[in-house]
Amino acid sequence: MSLEFAIELIKSTLPRDCVLTDATATTPFETDGLTAYRQRPPVVALPRDTNDVRQVLRICHETGVPVVTRGAGTGLSGGALPLENGVLLVLTKMNRILEVDETGCTATVQPGVTNLSISDAVADKGLYYAPDPSSQIACSIGGNVAENAGGVHCLKYGLTLHNVLGLKVQTIEGDELTLGGNGYESSGIELIPLFVGSEGMLGVVTEITVKLLPSPPCKEVLLGAFDDVESAGECVAAIIARGVVPAGLEMMDALAIQAAEDFVHAGYPRDAATILLCEVDGTKEQVRSDVTLIRQLMETNGAVNIRSASEPDERDLLWQGRKAAFPAVGRISPDYYCMDGTIPRRFLGKILSSIALLAAKHELRVANVFHAGDGNLHPLILYDASDDEQLHRAERLGVEILELCVAVGGTVTGEHGVGVEKLDPMCSQFSTPELEQFFRLKEVFDTSGLMNPGKAIPTLAHCSEIKGMHVHGGKLPFPELDRF
Amino acid sequence: MSLEFAIELIKSTLPRDCVLTDATATTPFETDGLTAYRQRPPVVALPRDTNDVRQVLRICHETGVPVVTRGAGTGLSGGALPLENGVLLVLTKMNRILEVDETGCTATVQPGVTNLSISDAVADKGLYYAPDPSSQIACSIGGNVAENAGGVHCLKYGLTLHNVLGLKVQTIEGDELTLGGNGYESSGIELIPLFVGSEGMLGVVTEITVKLLPSPPCKEVLLGAFDDVESAGECVAAIIARGVVPAGLEMMDALAIQAAEDFVHAGYPRDAATILLCEVDGTKEQVRSDVTLIRQLMETNGAVNIRSASEPDERDLLWQGRKAAFPAVGRISPDYYCMDGTIPRRFLGKILSSIALLAAKHELRVANVFHAGDGNLHPLILYDASDDEQLHRAERLGVEILELCVAVGGTVTGEHGVGVEKLDPMCSQFSTPELEQFFRLKEVFDTSGLMNPGKAIPTLAHCSEIKGMHVHGGKLPFPELDRF
Repeated sequence: MSLEFAIELIKSTLPRDCVLTDATATTPFETDGLTAYRQRPPVVALPRDTNDVRQVLRICHETGVPVVTRGAGTGLSGGALPLENGVLLVLTKMNRILEVDETGCTATVQPGVTNLSISDAVADKGLYYAPDPSSQIACSIGGNVAENAGGVHCLKYGLTLHNVLGLKVQTIEGDELTLGGNGYESSGIELIPLFVGSEGMLGVVTEITVKLLPSPPCKEVLLGAFDDVESAGECVAAIIARGVVPAGLEMMDALAIQAAEDFVHAGYPRDAATILLCEVDGTKEQVRSDVTLIRQLMETNGAVNIRSASEPDERDLLWQGRKAAFPAVGRISPDYYCMDGTIPRRFLGKILSSIALLAAKHELRVANVFHAGDGNLHPLILYDASDDEQLHRAERLGVEILELCVAVGGTVTGEHGVGVEKLDPMCSQFSTPELEQFFRLKEVFDTSGLMNPGKAIPTLAHCSEIKGMHVHGGKLPFPELDRF
Repeated sequence: MSLEFAIELIKSTLPRDCVLTDATATTPFETDGLTAYRQRPPVVALPRDTNDVRQVLRICHETGVPVVTRGAGTGLSGGALPLENGVLLVLTKMNRILEVDETGCTATVQPGVTNLSISDAVADKGLYYAPDPSSQIACSIGGNVAENAGGVHCLKYGLTLHNVLGLKVQTIEGDELTLGGNGYESSGIELIPLFVGSEGMLGVVTEITVKLLPSPPCKEVLLGAFDDVESAGECVAAIIARGVVPAGLEMMDALAIQAAEDFVHAGYPRDAATILLCEVDGTKEQVRSDVTLIRQLMETNGAVNIRSASEPDERDLLWQGRKAAFPAVGRISPDYYCMDGTIPRRFLGKILSSIALLAAKHELRVANVFHAGDGNLHPLILYDASDDEQLHRAERLGVEILELCVAVGGTVTGEHGVGVEKLDPMCSQFSTPELEQFFRLKEVFDTSGLMNPGKAIPTLAHCSEIKGMHVHGGKLPFPELDRF
């Protein structure tokens, strides 16, 4: 009843083309980049500006109707999954670049601007925006902020969190918060990191000031092939330990290499157990010096084959295999389930062996694609969703892989967010007082509990129901695993 | 009454040498690195370990007695100023390095470890801890976390916030929170940035995992002298815009140059209006390439004199003048008042002119020392504290300088914290809903309001009393200033 009333109020407030309720019009919003979860929203509101956002939030607040905020819908964890009894607030119409400060190297933009279009808009000034999720041509900067998005260049340039200088946020109570600014740092309690990655639970971000970087004059990509995973892991550690911070440092295992090679023909060595892709950037002299050192470290650590690419076309080709790894794996399996755990770098080799053991136990294949420099894993679990029993095994394997990450001191998500997908493993990572504090933090900004309820933080009841075991800082699980 | 009871309980819980109540013993704790505020604590508790911390917190919680946490006492804003009716919890006995992970480049330490001793402990592994406040030989890492300390190398390597990977925190309710870890990133609501810089208001940090970096193989320092401030400001912008990120980029004005030169004889050009000190680090090739570019940019932007230093002794001498700037200014004035505002870099030149106008209005001298690359200003207001009227003018000038920072989009503190000193200008920077949310955030962790009450966040009553005007995002104040 209150939902119907809220819809009427929204219809009477926003222009007709900014409110969708028809099934044909709302169905495209029922899911995000992830296909396992679907819910058609009863109403989609498309605000044109901050004032529209405030009006919709006010209506939700007054009628007690929950609201889910969505950007371009490229998310991978169901963070923007609609509610059957709530409003879906879609920010794609708010897609203007408001200001570019060339001297200060900042851009202030609306949340619906796509990630790549920020870089496009400042390219003529020799600047760009660094975080580059694979979906950067489509994903919105507002969604990047909500999920603290990463990308292959985040090792050197940081996640979204490290590239956001200021936010304007609308709370459901009608307050506008100005966080940070154009300056280097803020005082008071630092709120930007609280909002970056908060998955729409605290408020609606309506303006974002991002840091721009000068485009590096020179780049080079190295591909090192290894006969075993442990050597590649040690090579990663050696590169970081020598103080080189590559712009990107990615690892792929045999199954991922073969799938990618069959798909884009990047020239990857099909017989390698692992490849490392390493990009360095800077001045010509810096790149030359880094490439020499990395090549030497790859050799010392047992690389059997090293290629380098300095021309744009060659570099792009080497990256294409990596960037197409997910769809490539999609070609060799009816479905796949993408994990996003993180681990301390020193466990890289060991984790891959353990994942292989767990996969064997569940009789499933896993292709591994890693942001190796960051210790951010993307194990892709191959399965057939039409087989319920296989789906169940895939989910079980996913949970066990994430519990493994947590047990060695890592986390259940590195850059894809928790959404609805990782609610269960969150019970493993966090203790009861920690989860309670998350909810109390949410209440500070979202007093009525209407902002994206049910996402990102599992309730204690949920954890108890799934018997989620808090394993943070637990014993290393490897000895147990050896029994399989 | 409850304080006396709390003291008795603490005495019966901790060993005798861990509890001080005698005036002779407690007087050294009455102030921090800043001398304007003094309060002798009725009791000083010196816990030996986390368990002791928890016991003291439990006693405070049960008796309703407030608690102030203190590290080495080198703070510059009165954040650890004792309360006349509270417990002072001093963490200097908790000074062990618990673990060093050479592969992961992390160290886990107790809060009482000094900043420099972390780098000393890992130097033989070729590693170091990057943030380097001027007090690094004495200040504790726990205090660095509480104040989000900076330093001259934070332009390239970030503030404390960017170098902390994990925290263990004890809340006054008796919960232990584990935030982050050894891994790259956390999931759930990001709490580390909430605690870094929270000035002891939320909980007591008992364990800290920091990021270590490999020591750069090569360094060089350039000194550029300029005839006017605006040119030096433009040179800073030009360096950053070309994508060079110097390890340090500092600016000093004429008064600061002369005071420093008279004190340490670093060879600074006494007749320069401004100098820039610029350090670059990396491999030999990288340093050579950066130095060439920066030298060229200094020339283009009107530097009248450029010196460079590549040998350790020469480099140290150039830095000594900068690092001794505060005591050097102390030699030419009975007292000085150190500001710590930040501004967007593009206002560097303009701000210096405006500060000069404001100083003339109040008939006071100001020496300026800047972390120019970060836009973090340290105007030092020279005055005589024995003259009440002059003290009042100095404080007034300080507030006006900070209001200027806020009005151009900056903040009232960059790296020294709010403490008690900057409560007034916080009223200028933040609006009522923003301040209210700070207090609600504090309550999430500190339900009873006993953790360092009265610091860091001004009450609304206080702002109303001082008629603090919220100027965030206000008009640029320069035209008004021109009337003086």
